[in-house]
Amino acid sequence: MTIREITLDELNPEEFIAQQVETVSSTVGDGRAINALSGGVDSSTVTLLGHKALGDRLLTVFVENGIMRKEEPQRVVERFEALGVPVELIDARQGFFAALKGLTDPEEKREAITQTFYKTVFGKLVKESGARFLLHGTILTDVDETVAGIKRQHNILTQLGIDTEEAYGYQVIEPLLQLRKPAVRVVAKALGLSEAVYNRMPFPGPALAARVIGEVTPERAETVREATAIVEEELADTGAFQYLAILHQDKVTGMRAGKRDYGSQIEVRCWESADARTGSPTRLPFDILERLADRITSKVPGVVSVTYNVTKKPPSTIEAV
Amino acid sequence: MTIREITLDELNPEEFIAQQVETVSSTVGDGRAINALSGGVDSSTVTLLGHKALGDRLLTVFVENGIMRKEEPQRVVERFEALGVPVELIDARQGFFAALKGLTDPEEKREAITQTFYKTVFGKLVKESGARFLLHGTILTDVDETVAGIKRQHNILTQLGIDTEEAYGYQVIEPLLQLRKPAVRVVAKALGLSEAVYNRMPFPGPALAARVIGEVTPERAETVREATAIVEEELADTGAFQYLAILHQDKVTGMRAGKRDYGSQIEVRCWESADARTGSPTRLPFDILERLADRITSKVPGVVSVTYNVTKKPPSTIEAV
Repeated sequence: MTIREITLDELNPEEFIAQQVETVSSTVGDGRAINALSGGVDSSTVTLLGHKALGDRLLTVFVENGIMRKEEPQRVVERFEALGVPVELIDARQGFFAALKGLTDPEEKREAITQTFYKTVFGKLVKESGARFLLHGTILTDVDETVAGIKRQHNILTQLGIDTEEAYGYQVIEPLLQLRKPAVRVVAKALGLSEAVYNRMPFPGPALAARVIGEVTPERAETVREATAIVEEELADTGAFQYLAILHQDKVTGMRAGKRDYGSQIEVRCWESADARTGSPTRLPFDILERLADRITSKVPGVVSVTYNVTKKPPSTIEAV
Repeated sequence: MTIREITLDELNPEEFIAQQVETVSSTVGDGRAINALSGGVDSSTVTLLGHKALGDRLLTVFVENGIMRKEEPQRVVERFEALGVPVELIDARQGFFAALKGLTDPEEKREAITQTFYKTVFGKLVKESGARFLLHGTILTDVDETVAGIKRQHNILTQLGIDTEEAYGYQVIEPLLQLRKPAVRVVAKALGLSEAVYNRMPFPGPALAARVIGEVTPERAETVREATAIVEEELADTGAFQYLAILHQDKVTGMRAGKRDYGSQIEVRCWESADARTGSPTRLPFDILERLADRITSKVPGVVSVTYNVTKKPPSTIEAV
């Protein structure tokens, strides 16, 4: 099946919204649907479309996995409450950290997060909810990348641990399947989502686990979370494409109160880029770079050193893990 | 015993040189002496003083430990040959790498280098040479730091594995014992050493092993050596106090020819400092920072990422290991 793209030029957002609301509504009928909200633009858009179509017959869950940014779960839930959309906050931190325990390989960490999310947490919620319809924020780029072998396949039922036999009766609805990201942003805006959502800086699927080199423990997640909060605050006005903090596993020598003190290093990256395919480090003033270092080393326990990435992509990548 | 300091103000370099040459000459008589040259200002100065006093009755050795900078052994030997001072180049790379194998703890690495140098390599040379006199570049600061417990003690005979019984007849001569570094530089200049020697940038005792996080293998030493050569070339004109390249153990994601490629990271540090007790990162132009990254990632095999330190000392230290 070839999916027909709706290009940014073709898109009439109001018409698109009306059509998708109608499709969701007629597909679900008087049944119940469920979706997982991450706070990103795709899942936020799907949540609003689903809510318009189904009202309280849509169950939207936000899974707190322990590797979100500072206050992110609360902020996302409050944002949707303000729009009249109830979101159920599921505290699954223990399950994620248990799955991540002892893992240092980036691929294994990513797989542990995917498995915990789909099978252990969301899969269970789907079955318990009694919903037979899943709303999912797949976009055309996800399909392209699955075909090209860059991303794992997007057969969400398989990912949820629902096999074909048992799955009879389950249906996945993907309202954004014909759009690419720029078109999704237009729809998001037309739905009344704030700029913080429709222009949200890219954030990796494995969340802060993608910003931790080595094992992701609750303590190390907290370290990178605090550093990330400082970096996002200090660099908010740069207009950069993306900025991030990475917790390294290597220990470096530091000094506290005149004494030698091994500690951790945080690497800051800030990118100029159009589409993430290539990028260069933002030429930040040293006043900002030194303030970042001062704040991070004084506020984040255990951090004695801060570096700034000066490598272009390629040969670097945007994220480190 | 209290050592009387000769301050920079008091120092008359010509007089000091004449006195030390006389002392070395009368102490050694018609015997033979040996000394180890590292290329640093202290051992270079002692080598020239000893040569003035003893001529070819001084055996000067340079130990190639495999963790020197690019072309450093050859450069040091040639520099002294040009001054008419023969230096014996000892290839001890295998012994050092064997001792470093499997070690990742910074203290253990340092200890392995010290033990290999003093006991295995130089201790053996001393005994084989038949020399009963050792010239050593101890300066007053070394003694202070030994007393203060910062550095290991400077009892060189013990370090050479020569015990008190057997040592009867061995004598250590320390011509620079009353000087601190700035006075040594003045003496070095008066002896005709070039500015590259008397104003040499500080370089750590454990050499490039202090610039490698994790195990020091021949391959990893080569990686940091190549990166160091690029950093020293690019930053030579900055007038900075010290600049260096550090090879991290953490792997980060990179891209080569459009494909994902895990690789190594090099951290560059460049310091503004008066005396190494405090320091701030040099505010290098991004043109230089990006050129460093481009050259290092394209010329040094396996390196996909370069960062620049933006943390002051304290809480950072000058070196990382």
